[in-house]
Amino acid sequence: MKVLIVYAHPEPRSFGRALLDRSVATLRDCGHEVQVSDLYAMGFNPVATGADFTSRRFPDALQYDREQKRSSEQQTFAGDIQAELDKLLACDLLILQFPLWWFSVPAILKGWIDRVFVNGTVYGSGGMRFDNGGLKGRKAMLAFTTGCFPQMMEPGGLLGARDVILWHLQYGTFGYSGLQVLQPFVGWSIQYTDDAQRKTYLDQYEARLRAIEHEEAMQTHVLADFGSDWCLKAGIAPRTAGHNLNLHAG
Amino acid sequence: MKVLIVYAHPEPRSFGRALLDRSVATLRDCGHEVQVSDLYAMGFNPVATGADFTSRRFPDALQYDREQKRSSEQQTFAGDIQAELDKLLACDLLILQFPLWWFSVPAILKGWIDRVFVNGTVYGSGGMRFDNGGLKGRKAMLAFTTGCFPQMMEPGGLLGARDVILWHLQYGTFGYSGLQVLQPFVGWSIQYTDDAQRKTYLDQYEARLRAIEHEEAMQTHVLADFGSDWCLKAGIAPRTAGHNLNLHAG
Repeated sequence: MKVLIVYAHPEPRSFGRALLDRSVATLRDCGHEVQVSDLYAMGFNPVATGADFTSRRFPDALQYDREQKRSSEQQTFAGDIQAELDKLLACDLLILQFPLWWFSVPAILKGWIDRVFVNGTVYGSGGMRFDNGGLKGRKAMLAFTTGCFPQMMEPGGLLGARDVILWHLQYGTFGYSGLQVLQPFVGWSIQYTDDAQRKTYLDQYEARLRAIEHEEAMQTHVLADFGSDWCLKAGIAPRTAGHNLNLHAG
Repeated sequence: MKVLIVYAHPEPRSFGRALLDRSVATLRDCGHEVQVSDLYAMGFNPVATGADFTSRRFPDALQYDREQKRSSEQQTFAGDIQAELDKLLACDLLILQFPLWWFSVPAILKGWIDRVFVNGTVYGSGGMRFDNGGLKGRKAMLAFTTGCFPQMMEPGGLLGARDVILWHLQYGTFGYSGLQVLQPFVGWSIQYTDDAQRKTYLDQYEARLRAIEHEEAMQTHVLADFGSDWCLKAGIAPRTAGHNLNLHAG
């Protein structure tokens, strides 16, 4: 497999960095080809602006996604975007690795998504999304460290169910783009762990990655499950956290 | 009321800007005091680094949230962070206004959260979170425009239930910090609307804001609902999208 790891951590001496290093070594040892986008080290610009396009269809007022669509057709993305897009399109497995900040990715990684998951290539008109998304045929996973304990992300946990917390990333970003989503890897409450626990996490991540080629994706819905009203058809049982029809019953 | 609007849109001639202008005019007309942080206009830096602190407790390796905690005690935040933190602590109502990008806020706004919602002030040790959060007594709401249609964010909709999509922001960020969360204001499928529909959205937002002081917050849980295992106590019915205990039944 070709693996792209997009890594966002401000500290090179962090446990996150140790996880990254272990993952790269493991995947290469398994014969996979690995590329790393170390966003902090690259000084990656996360802020989407009109300068993201070398020419514009609507120069008077920026319509970001419409310019993305045109740039997808005419290859007029700024160099830093095109470079990341090339890596993304070349990969079979995408791993986003980060510390969980405010129930999501750090801003530098959100900006990588905003600028690189472009209209016209990753998703677009003509129903290019979900099982028909531009990245179909590829897999993706989140790998993150937390400050919280695992019980806090159980369905009744203090922070809410894990798949609800991650919905915007796993279903919304990966799923929408056609990526098949693998279970996340989580290093829990990393500040409160000792060296032995950290070594355990490293070993667990390595073991997971050694077999990752054969992992099955999480269950989700396909476009055909939804009717012309954009809602699940009668008779299609909700299969995900975000489609539970009894959500507002409480 | 004192209102802080944090606004993230790259285009000054956008409908988003029209919404912002209408909201500021309306709130001032109602006698409220309004401050706007226009993140793009300010060139706000969204990337959290060690330079966010004028002195460090752990200079060798950055532990971002622990440095936040120390800076909360010693007032050693970088100037741009302290300025935003002052605005945040002074407000009674926080509005985040943005175009919904990838089921979340644009990176520049995520970075405002990462850098300004600081440990030791907004949340922290000693159970300073949720109904005991550092921002308790204040309210917050999201105001955003979408590319999608409203049916797509129904519980069985293509994109998943709205409150699941927004969980990381409404429960995770606002709720965790002690903010009481008002229903979001949404301008739906804004690229596919005509001028009449846009005028309707502006008028709807104005009408909403004229009465916002008297709006009730969305229902949620309090810390006392959770046991020592960090999960909802027996007998406490889940009241939110993310605490639905049947999520994984499908």
